[in-house]
Amino acid sequence: MAGNSIGTIFKLTTFGESHGEALGGIIDGCPAGIELDFDAIQNEMQRRKPGQSAIVTQRKEEDEVKFLSGIFEGKTTGTPIGFIIENTNQKSDDYSHIKYTYRPSHADYVYEKKYGIRDYRGGGRSSARETVSRVVAGAIAKQVIPDVKINAFVSSVGEIFIDKPYQELDFSLTETNAVRCPDVVTAQKMEEHIKEIKKQGDTIGGTITCVIQNVPIGLGEPVFDKLHAELGKAMLSINAVHGFEYGSGFCGARMKGSEHNDLFNEDGTTKTNLSGGIQGGISNGMDIYFRVTFKPVATLLQQQEVLTNENKLIIQQGKGRHDACVVPRAVPIVEAMAALVIADYYLLNKLYQ
Amino acid sequence: MAGNSIGTIFKLTTFGESHGEALGGIIDGCPAGIELDFDAIQNEMQRRKPGQSAIVTQRKEEDEVKFLSGIFEGKTTGTPIGFIIENTNQKSDDYSHIKYTYRPSHADYVYEKKYGIRDYRGGGRSSARETVSRVVAGAIAKQVIPDVKINAFVSSVGEIFIDKPYQELDFSLTETNAVRCPDVVTAQKMEEHIKEIKKQGDTIGGTITCVIQNVPIGLGEPVFDKLHAELGKAMLSINAVHGFEYGSGFCGARMKGSEHNDLFNEDGTTKTNLSGGIQGGISNGMDIYFRVTFKPVATLLQQQEVLTNENKLIIQQGKGRHDACVVPRAVPIVEAMAALVIADYYLLNKLYQ
Amino acid sequence: MAGNSIGTIFKLTTFGESHGEALGGIIDGCPAGIELDFDAIQNEMQRRKPGQSAIVTQRKEEDEVKFLSGIFEGKTTGTPIGFIIENTNQKSDDYSHIKYTYRPSHADYVYEKKYGIRDYRGGGRSSARETVSRVVAGAIAKQVIPDVKINAFVSSVGEIFIDKPYQELDFSLTETNAVRCPDVVTAQKMEEHIKEIKKQGDTIGGTITCVIQNVPIGLGEPVFDKLHAELGKAMLSINAVHGFEYGSGFCGARMKGSEHNDLFNEDGTTKTNLSGGIQGGISNGMDIYFRVTFKPVATLLQQQEVLTNENKLIIQQGKGRHDACVVPRAVPIVEAMAALVIADYYLLNKLYQ
Amino acid sequence: MAGNSIGTIFKLTTFGESHGEALGGIIDGCPAGIELDFDAIQNEMQRRKPGQSAIVTQRKEEDEVKFLSGIFEGKTTGTPIGFIIENTNQKSDDYSHIKYTYRPSHADYVYEKKYGIRDYRGGGRSSARETVSRVVAGAIAKQVIPDVKINAFVSSVGEIFIDKPYQELDFSLTETNAVRCPDVVTAQKMEEHIKEIKKQGDTIGGTITCVIQNVPIGLGEPVFDKLHAELGKAMLSINAVHGFEYGSGFCGARMKGSEHNDLFNEDGTTKTNLSGGIQGGISNGMDIYFRVTFKPVATLLQQQEVLTNENKLIIQQGKGRHDACVVPRAVPIVEAMAALVIADYYLLNKLYQ
Repeated sequence: MAGNSIGTIFKLTTFGESHGEALGGIIDGCPAGIELDFDAIQNEMQRRKPGQSAIVTQRKEEDEVKFLSGIFEGKTTGTPIGFIIENTNQKSDDYSHIKYTYRPSHADYVYEKKYGIRDYRGGGRSSARETVSRVVAGAIAKQVIPDVKINAFVSSVGEIFIDKPYQELDFSLTETNAVRCPDVVTAQKMEEHIKEIKKQGDTIGGTITCVIQNVPIGLGEPVFDKLHAELGKAMLSINAVHGFEYGSGFCGARMKGSEHNDLFNEDGTTKTNLSGGIQGGISNGMDIYFRVTFKPVATLLQQQEVLTNENKLIIQQGKGRHDACVVPRAVPIVEAMAALVIADYYLLNKLYQ
Repeated sequence: MAGNSIGTIFKLTTFGESHGEALGGIIDGCPAGIELDFDAIQNEMQRRKPGQSAIVTQRKEEDEVKFLSGIFEGKTTGTPIGFIIENTNQKSDDYSHIKYTYRPSHADYVYEKKYGIRDYRGGGRSSARETVSRVVAGAIAKQVIPDVKINAFVSSVGEIFIDKPYQELDFSLTETNAVRCPDVVTAQKMEEHIKEIKKQGDTIGGTITCVIQNVPIGLGEPVFDKLHAELGKAMLSINAVHGFEYGSGFCGARMKGSEHNDLFNEDGTTKTNLSGGIQGGISNGMDIYFRVTFKPVATLLQQQEVLTNENKLIIQQGKGRHDACVVPRAVPIVEAMAALVIADYYLLNKLYQ
Repeated sequence: MAGNSIGTIFKLTTFGESHGEALGGIIDGCPAGIELDFDAIQNEMQRRKPGQSAIVTQRKEEDEVKFLSGIFEGKTTGTPIGFIIENTNQKSDDYSHIKYTYRPSHADYVYEKKYGIRDYRGGGRSSARETVSRVVAGAIAKQVIPDVKINAFVSSVGEIFIDKPYQELDFSLTETNAVRCPDVVTAQKMEEHIKEIKKQGDTIGGTITCVIQNVPIGLGEPVFDKLHAELGKAMLSINAVHGFEYGSGFCGARMKGSEHNDLFNEDGTTKTNLSGGIQGGISNGMDIYFRVTFKPVATLLQQQEVLTNENKLIIQQGKGRHDACVVPRAVPIVEAMAALVIADYYLLNKLYQ
Repeated sequence: MAGNSIGTIFKLTTFGESHGEALGGIIDGCPAGIELDFDAIQNEMQRRKPGQSAIVTQRKEEDEVKFLSGIFEGKTTGTPIGFIIENTNQKSDDYSHIKYTYRPSHADYVYEKKYGIRDYRGGGRSSARETVSRVVAGAIAKQVIPDVKINAFVSSVGEIFIDKPYQELDFSLTETNAVRCPDVVTAQKMEEHIKEIKKQGDTIGGTITCVIQNVPIGLGEPVFDKLHAELGKAMLSINAVHGFEYGSGFCGARMKGSEHNDLFNEDGTTKTNLSGGIQGGISNGMDIYFRVTFKPVATLLQQQEVLTNENKLIIQQGKGRHDACVVPRAVPIVEAMAALVIADYYLLNKLYQ
């Protein structure tokens, strides 16, 4: 109940703190008989992992997933898939300085107020380390819907953004650079900008665009569980996300209906796609695309005012290994969450067939 | 299961089509002993009602809510509150022209594909008429959390927007004009713009900003059910909504951490509030504020190409009574959805006390 | 959340008090395109209705169901089915004597303690009148699984019971007598016994047996949501039910494994069926059968000691129109609950196909 | 969704097969700040463990629980508690003989039909080994409701039963004998009977009675989620359980209302307690007591006819280490399930306060 589950049919429940013994989860409702591609799963883990390039944190996380159940002779059996990822690289003493202090724009303060106790080491449950379980489950979800293509990429870092529609991009280039931006010229500018920000001990925000292709018509439930509402919730549940828009998004507010309506072709496809592949909360077979915005990481490697648990303000030096810009590493997380939602709605839609 | 419920503790389930006999819902989990203010409920219904001014549709909906259970001698009893709103003003023949056609950017086509059948009269379940039940439940939710102040208002129509922070606005002016914009000068410009658009038989999009004040610290669950994730889902579930951002929102993507972090005061409040009153998914006691974007209404009173159920494209004249701009009437709906989420999380948080 | 819903895919939520304006419910998740047999639904309502014979209460309930949504041109549309049953025959003053008193073995006292308020008229939400909504939904559920045959019947009243296995009974005789016992000789004895008990102003308990035939193999989920666990919960949720057993039931506790095991035939059916059609929580295609026990109705038409809200014990004369034995009228309710569970699990199992 | 979760507020989700790497679970919604008694948890594990006496299976299970999250410095933090129990003692080749055969009254056949695949080793997910996770969670649940006393005991084995009401028993004697029967004379008879049955390579059924004392008034939700309905479901979800009755149970069917009604004392307690501590689905503060019936274990150490996956009947010798009577070891499992339900409803009831 307390918010650590997502999905109704393909349902993921997770546990784990950044500095506990392990993180992990249970996937309940995965169909039986799927021959899992374990390399594909581990590959997603690699993509999420820190320390892959000069622009992301050099913290080393092994991130090897261990499956404990629900798989027999390489295939899913329909029973719950339990998995863990051990924390092998925590340095708890890195965090002793925040035992009695609340960092600005972190969850320290509200956790303390809500629960009266918190695992202060590295953010505990509120750490982005938690997303490791999402990536495991998302990698399996992708294999439940093998025909669906999910491609996320960094579309902006600070003021630098891709100035082309996604249709003009080559998604195969996303993984060729450290920022995960398929527009390689822009990628280079982003990379330089992040390096500079990092040098200042500062951080910078950014956005990720995600395109989901080949989604069957009919996914999504009317009213409260519209497909884009669930996608939005899934994205907003990712650490540091402050906004979500799909299709025409915020630009649509400035448009006229006569400009915005997507006229049909005779085969039921549409000539334009400002609807973002979803009408009335239900997929219409066109590309689903959306954009997610991330605030800058709150942990700065600078001096900063923090609040103590005795209500004093003191100056503290930020420490630890943190990303100067979170969006490159968030790309596989956005994809994982998209996969979880689409797989869940895909299974739910079987009920109507 | 099929998506017509929202909330976990304070749970609303709704039913009803625009041209059926009635719409309504069941609120399960409303605390007992609340002395209901029925005028306040009916007042919210009035706010949502069409036909209140020159700029909204002149369709007349009586929208009188009839409570059938869960209330005894004016107080809630803790048992489910059943309610209905009769459809007294439907003109089904207005819609006969769409029996065999799918209008662009409507849900006609996807409903047909998903269910193999649809109540084509006035959009059926996909009509915004469905929101009437949300407003009833939201009005009750507001009474569950009487200390919380929820104020939504129109912040933009097309290219016209309020260029002040919400702190400089007087929310008591929102209801003084037809567009529900508390900045009266801007309101007048918006009103004129909508009239012009209407004359063209066209429609226009817009945004609504919502400010929630006096929320206790601690509402929200970590990980998947973050407070802003649920608020986002609730907003995205409203017809025509294409995006949601809270706190710094999409602007945050352009900021540095040193600019974005909200430094504490000694009492735990913060000097700035780019976090939008939520940290790590949990309310921190500061104002919660967010912005919701609406696409332009898809029904145009113009000629337009539609698809027939025999896969032909034909020209059809848009008919019916529709809003040229939906945002003024959506203000009470945004507030209702916000109230539902906050009341639900407020009750859920009692578990920790 | 507060317990007024059942089912995960085919989900019923109900509302209503015995003396409120109406009772009703919402069925969410009913598949689209089912051509409803409304006579069959009304027929189930008739079966549940009081006043049908000398042995049941003469209270007149009209019990006409009014469907408000989810049905178009006689077919389900996949959207939620809202329905109400108006209370046309309440006599609230019949119950004024219990305004300040708690009757023994009723829910008066615990409702008052739990909620601090109660609708004392006729038991309010705790009245068996609430089951009327279950019967409506069960009648629709039966039409979702037309091949499944559900037959419940009274198997005992007080000390009088059918002494044959169900295989020797002719279910078509169940409705030929007032007690709904397909063994007509036993039925007559039961009927006479109930009349005698009634004359004494007393009441008597009984049991209902239910046989579900033609259930596909594979319904039921392992571990917590075993098919018989959900059937058990559904039955135990009916007013006055104090026990549930399936297959060999309590007799199985006295048996040896070598007697109890159901040996296979070559086609996968079993030679015996002490498992009651369910193995490991999953239907195996054999008949599912179970027995439900009802305590005697607590309302006596005698003088009885009651507790006042000022903690005094006083003598009160039981009044109102009540059944001397509830089991004959509970037969359609047991069938309805069985249909709800089987339909729900039937739909859920589509995920595996 | 696929049935591996129980509870709404205090929610347990489990995973694991008898011969996989580990079993375990996640408890979501455990209140923060509870100082856990780990010895008490391990003690419950010991009680469930096989190999403790001559009458239970000599299979050795280490059953050491490893907590991975949600606990910090010995206290719960409010975040999900992840835990695993490694399978250190599986002998998979013991089960190779059932790879292609379906044993009578086991779940082999239905799993194969439902999922098209099964982990045949030792029953996989359908093995009672799965209950180990329930016992861990139940032991924590008991610590959430420290004032509530839960005592289960074996009340019958085959034809041998305790012939006293539970009020005359001394629960402190339950753990003094191998069958867990607090009536020591009866216990000895049971023990001898089980030994004899075991010698025959056969098995025998039995019943467990559970008494829950000191439950606050007001737990339970009306209508579908009545307290006894949820207790019933929880018990029926335990392997081999075929029936549940509470309070007067099946005996109530033979009683008159004038005998059955529990008259009040002036303090709101009742003179008798045929209601079993629950009225209208809500606890009334009196003892809650119920009885659960277990069929004889289906695995016999005898020759028996089994079905092959090629639809042949062959004779097979039962092998492995199995209990001749499951009820002694099921006592802590019944208590665990009772604790899970009471803790969940206890927390849920906080919403009304």
